[in-house]
Amino acid sequence: MTAVIPAGVETARDLVGPAMATAVARLSPDVRQVAEYHLGLAGTGKPGPGGKPAGSGKALRPALALLSARAAMEPAERGVPAAVAVELVHNFSLLHDDIMDGDTERRHRPTAWTVYGTGAAILAGDALLALAQEILLEAGAPNGLWAARCLSAAVQRLIAGQGADLAFEQRDDVTLAECQEMAGDKTAALMACACSIGAIHVGAPASLAMGLAGFGAHVGQAFQLTDDLLGIWGAPERTGKPAGSDLRARKKSLPIVAALASGTAAATELAGLLASPEPMDDAQVARAARLVADAGGRSWTEVEAAAQLAAARKCLAETDMPEDVRAEFAGIAEFITERQW
Amino acid sequence: MTAVIPAGVETARDLVGPAMATAVARLSPDVRQVAEYHLGLAGTGKPGPGGKPAGSGKALRPALALLSARAAMEPAERGVPAAVAVELVHNFSLLHDDIMDGDTERRHRPTAWTVYGTGAAILAGDALLALAQEILLEAGAPNGLWAARCLSAAVQRLIAGQGADLAFEQRDDVTLAECQEMAGDKTAALMACACSIGAIHVGAPASLAMGLAGFGAHVGQAFQLTDDLLGIWGAPERTGKPAGSDLRARKKSLPIVAALASGTAAATELAGLLASPEPMDDAQVARAARLVADAGGRSWTEVEAAAQLAAARKCLAETDMPEDVRAEFAGIAEFITERQW
Repeated sequence: MTAVIPAGVETARDLVGPAMATAVARLSPDVRQVAEYHLGLAGTGKPGPGGKPAGSGKALRPALALLSARAAMEPAERGVPAAVAVELVHNFSLLHDDIMDGDTERRHRPTAWTVYGTGAAILAGDALLALAQEILLEAGAPNGLWAARCLSAAVQRLIAGQGADLAFEQRDDVTLAECQEMAGDKTAALMACACSIGAIHVGAPASLAMGLAGFGAHVGQAFQLTDDLLGIWGAPERTGKPAGSDLRARKKSLPIVAALASGTAAATELAGLLASPEPMDDAQVARAARLVADAGGRSWTEVEAAAQLAAARKCLAETDMPEDVRAEFAGIAEFITERQW
Repeated sequence: MTAVIPAGVETARDLVGPAMATAVARLSPDVRQVAEYHLGLAGTGKPGPGGKPAGSGKALRPALALLSARAAMEPAERGVPAAVAVELVHNFSLLHDDIMDGDTERRHRPTAWTVYGTGAAILAGDALLALAQEILLEAGAPNGLWAARCLSAAVQRLIAGQGADLAFEQRDDVTLAECQEMAGDKTAALMACACSIGAIHVGAPASLAMGLAGFGAHVGQAFQLTDDLLGIWGAPERTGKPAGSDLRARKKSLPIVAALASGTAAATELAGLLASPEPMDDAQVARAARLVADAGGRSWTEVEAAAQLAAARKCLAETDMPEDVRAEFAGIAEFITERQW
């Protein structure tokens, strides 16, 4: 099954893409070059999945931010500054996470730090974070200050989540609950922000913002669960990452931690494989993936992703907004759990 | 001659120190630990110069921010959020710069990345940057939004300056003008922000904010020039850096670039020493320092620092503020150019 990118996501890319390019063009030349490379604005490459230009992301968060403004009965265009701010923050975190995680490939291309050096990639990330706040504060919208606070809070949770993720690497007793909290911080917080910041930025009432944030938090959890499934079973030619990459990196991803907590014989064998200091060969990676499934880690993750999607739909149903906007939100939520990359 | 820390700086440390600790205490545990270590809030060490606790900085920027609020006829306490925000941004940049520059010691202690790892230090810096904006936006002051924009603009110049600094390492044709622009971005912009943000945050008129920013920009240039002198001729036991550290690191600091541009025989010999790929021994470092002086790099820097101090004093004289505040600003400006660390 191949999930199709919802039309709204393509439209969002058309609307937000030029605004992103304009925002990044303000940066000083040295920093701008790295940011443009990372964002796929400069240079070329082979087309990625779905025919989109190599190097550009899925643009889900900007699409959610534009819908968020439309949920508040404003045209999508009014949501552009919020969408740009969220996408800048997302890319700030990718630039820095790639350094911390030692990842050498992203979006089918070498990561920025491998091309320009660690220092330049740190700086480019810093610049995108500061730029995100500037965009919100200068847009002159009635609630720029509130939108900026909403974004800052999400950034702090994102940082807390990545901090926990790094700390987990040093521990072998991470619980499933800790892992879910980490995913809530690392992924769901920014998704909740994306779904509500457009509305906040155009001055929507708090009840709408809170309903949208609740929807976004569940969508974010579903996104991370799906991402973790793809991190083990995703096709390399679609994800742009090596097969079983989370197993190779011995990440404490949700399916792996769920499997380890199962108390099964498969869990014991899996723990042994993951504990070895040697790099895993392809056969060991395949065996480990099999063990995660046998220990119930795969089915737990699939069930949990479906539950989060259902919870997201419930939030959506309970929040007052135009029907076409509701339908587009629902379409993106569905795409997120069905995507192959 | 030993410059004495102005009393206002000590007072600022008493007022801003606890607020810094409270702000950082909000961070998630993993990130907080790194930030507290970097700020000298956790752990102990031998007292630094002036008897201040090892690990704490000079706290010049917070002192300037408090004075800035007082220049607008408000009590120093009203300037605390602005002072905290500026000090957080300063420390964000130190955490990241130490990684980029590979520096292993700061404030007489191992740098955070050498203790906690690069990833944790990147994250801690990110968290301080986001926290700085939060502090300004939530303080409820009439001009939180303007103060946040002022800080963001300074952050972008800081990043541009560090980006240029990194790029200069790959070039051997950096001009003195480029170096001065880099110092303006890397150091003077945040100092200008420190001198004006307290006033902006309490709602002072633009004329006052601009006068203070002009003063701060000149003080910042004088600060960098002095720092560059200390980077060659500073006493290691006071600066906390090895003797001639900028020469060893082959930094394009202002005295070095001024010397290289002199067209003298000393400049030619200096260029040869700096071009060698081998690490310099102590005798070569001493020789290089001698050559910078012989080529006029030391005296150019001293004259330029004095000129910047004079320009700062002129700005101060032309800006309307209470006389005691003016005197304290002048005292800090003087300390900055006379300090030995």
